[in-house]
Amino acid sequence: MSESRETPKSPGPAAAGARKAAIRAAELDAAGPLTTTRERFVLDDTVYLDGNSLGALPRSVPDRIAEVIRHEWGELRIRSWTEAGWWTAPERIGEKIAPLVGAAPGQVVVGDSTSINVFKAVTGGIRMAGKGCTEILVDATTFPTDGYIARSAARMAGLAVRPVEPARIADEVTERTALALVNHVDYRTGELNDMASITAALHSAGTLAVWDLCHSAGALPVALDACGVDLAVGCTYKYLNGGPGSPAYLYVRKSLQERFESPLPGWNSHVDPFGMEPGYTPADGVLRGRVGTPDILSMLALEAALEVWEGVAIEDVRAKSLALTDFFLECVSEYAPPGRVRSVTPYEHRRRGSQVSLACSPGGSSVAAQGGAPVAGEVMAELIRRGVVGDFRPPDVLRFGFTPLYTTFADAERAAWVLGEVLRDQAAAGGDAG
Amino acid sequence: MSESRETPKSPGPAAAGARKAAIRAAELDAAGPLTTTRERFVLDDTVYLDGNSLGALPRSVPDRIAEVIRHEWGELRIRSWTEAGWWTAPERIGEKIAPLVGAAPGQVVVGDSTSINVFKAVTGGIRMAGKGCTEILVDATTFPTDGYIARSAARMAGLAVRPVEPARIADEVTERTALALVNHVDYRTGELNDMASITAALHSAGTLAVWDLCHSAGALPVALDACGVDLAVGCTYKYLNGGPGSPAYLYVRKSLQERFESPLPGWNSHVDPFGMEPGYTPADGVLRGRVGTPDILSMLALEAALEVWEGVAIEDVRAKSLALTDFFLECVSEYAPPGRVRSVTPYEHRRRGSQVSLACSPGGSSVAAQGGAPVAGEVMAELIRRGVVGDFRPPDVLRFGFTPLYTTFADAERAAWVLGEVLRDQAAAGGDAG
Repeated sequence: MSESRETPKSPGPAAAGARKAAIRAAELDAAGPLTTTRERFVLDDTVYLDGNSLGALPRSVPDRIAEVIRHEWGELRIRSWTEAGWWTAPERIGEKIAPLVGAAPGQVVVGDSTSINVFKAVTGGIRMAGKGCTEILVDATTFPTDGYIARSAARMAGLAVRPVEPARIADEVTERTALALVNHVDYRTGELNDMASITAALHSAGTLAVWDLCHSAGALPVALDACGVDLAVGCTYKYLNGGPGSPAYLYVRKSLQERFESPLPGWNSHVDPFGMEPGYTPADGVLRGRVGTPDILSMLALEAALEVWEGVAIEDVRAKSLALTDFFLECVSEYAPPGRVRSVTPYEHRRRGSQVSLACSPGGSSVAAQGGAPVAGEVMAELIRRGVVGDFRPPDVLRFGFTPLYTTFADAERAAWVLGEVLRDQAAAGGDAG
Repeated sequence: MSESRETPKSPGPAAAGARKAAIRAAELDAAGPLTTTRERFVLDDTVYLDGNSLGALPRSVPDRIAEVIRHEWGELRIRSWTEAGWWTAPERIGEKIAPLVGAAPGQVVVGDSTSINVFKAVTGGIRMAGKGCTEILVDATTFPTDGYIARSAARMAGLAVRPVEPARIADEVTERTALALVNHVDYRTGELNDMASITAALHSAGTLAVWDLCHSAGALPVALDACGVDLAVGCTYKYLNGGPGSPAYLYVRKSLQERFESPLPGWNSHVDPFGMEPGYTPADGVLRGRVGTPDILSMLALEAALEVWEGVAIEDVRAKSLALTDFFLECVSEYAPPGRVRSVTPYEHRRRGSQVSLACSPGGSSVAAQGGAPVAGEVMAELIRRGVVGDFRPPDVLRFGFTPLYTTFADAERAAWVLGEVLRDQAAAGGDAG
């Protein structure tokens, strides 16, 4: 997509500011770190800021999956379960994710969707909690599926669910709370919750800490072991670039594994799966988190995708993520018409994940504003038409995800520029029609 | 693999019988039906009789998945959820499986593993059953995972589990039985259970019928609607050739869908998934069986694999399946040393699935027999080394699966021939060592 930068239909940013930002983007992209990791992905000239929904395709994936299909499925067939390592893929790939989430070996297993892993973690956690527990806490700002599933798990165990804002958890937890399920980064606002302090507060009350890492793993350092987290889940198709619907993972802290009792004790978690015994005896360790036959194509695509982390320090990822989101926020304030967008993502670094969410208000005279139409949704649709891909989350959030391995500062600058254009064009069109 | 048919080390079958069987195989292969469907698969000169564990690779899969990765993931990225139909894949592919299991539209949804679908079906069924129910029945000969998961589901709902042989279900069901979970075909023996009569007996007692179709769908006619089955699950990587760990499916009878309440109410089953509402409101229909984000690569491989059914009548599949297994049993009795193998698969057609399971006893003087070693396991390992792939199920079963779309009568004859050789060689080696 070529960039036009035509004369805007309504007053736009000053030329000097735009020139300065463009030069700065080029300098930042040249300076590094992570100047070459973009080459590990298949990308084009779209500004792709939706890696927090579906990560871009790593170059390591297509040939690997072609080989899995042609040779492992097509020629070895059933022998691949042993000879090609299919059977042990869930734990092998778990070990490749472990360093990205601050987990020593033997605590992460891959398989099933995030929703299903939330069910395992919440039910397993409730079963480990004290007998007198009557409730669980769920992050009031959670991605919906976590809340739905936690409610189902709690109901099946006879416990109540209390939604609590993450910042209030330390005050709200009681000795009757079995566990709290908290999102590390809020999917909507991009706010980063403090894993160390919230986990410590929960532990002080004798409560288990269950974290959802969907929007943090791969974008910033996660320190499960160091924070003493009890259970965690995460998806792999966002910042881990595993592909559409690639399997999620479950973390069970080493010292809790012996007490972890899955509500989904499928044959893959049996101590002797091919013994075909009618009675269930769980395997040792985190293998207890396995359920049924793993979806090998999706799982091996994830494994190949994880090759992009070769030689990457997560601290560099974090540094670039913050620099990118800082720069994007600066460019937005330079380019966007005043009063139309407002960041709901915290400016403080310690409270920011790797996305910027802009609440988008209707322009004063626009038709959309007058009709109460979904302005933000329309803005995002137009951004996408103009080659800047983020996403929309109701009611009014424009969400822009920054994947430090491949997002450039030039991407950030161009996204802000196009956003400014779209907002001005929309206002102008609204004015024309009004 | 070339065939040697050397002079056996111990007395073998008569030449005339072997000649007759080989000629008959060629005639049967030429006669049809399903003489050309083998070309729809990637096969070599291995005799592959393990399609009841992992179906062979359909030729329609590799290019389709390469395109999904290159174009849909690599270029369209997030847009593919709508533009490439990813979001609706679970129900769209469900409709492609429906005719193979005798289901009218709107009752089958694809996703997750079989184990997880057993959990949905059993818990959902218990919730629909009468308040006074205290137990569920589980097929005593079930594939283990069904039993493990059913036990977990029943425990969470406060019900007991009673294992019952399928043939005894009509006698054992009581008004306190919420449901019975039955395998349509026994994974070990290949016995086909009578869906119509067992379902009718359950309904007479006011009990729900939940069927596992893993070993029947794609190998013989399944008549879910006609039998009035309430809930069913099945895998897609056996006779449906969907690939390693391809997603399973759930059937919920139309008239029960409004009462079906999933224990795994993930956001994909919400009436408005992108509304991101904190409260859960289920979608209408079988969509309630969806959970989290579907594993697209595995799911679209399955969709491509289902193209092999184009123009195939399941009645022809059944006719060829019975002819193949009849012929294999004849060849085994012609070629195998007397007393070494015995079919545990019923000879009666109405009680036979699409596999032959041979219980394998130790030869009289063999080392293995003397040492009590796992004879059947060794026999199968040697068969595989000689290019005949079946599998072994403890304690003593050699399992040979027949996939009518690609298994030939020549395959059946050669498998029996090589089995005879292996058994004679093993006996001879045992004699030498003794």
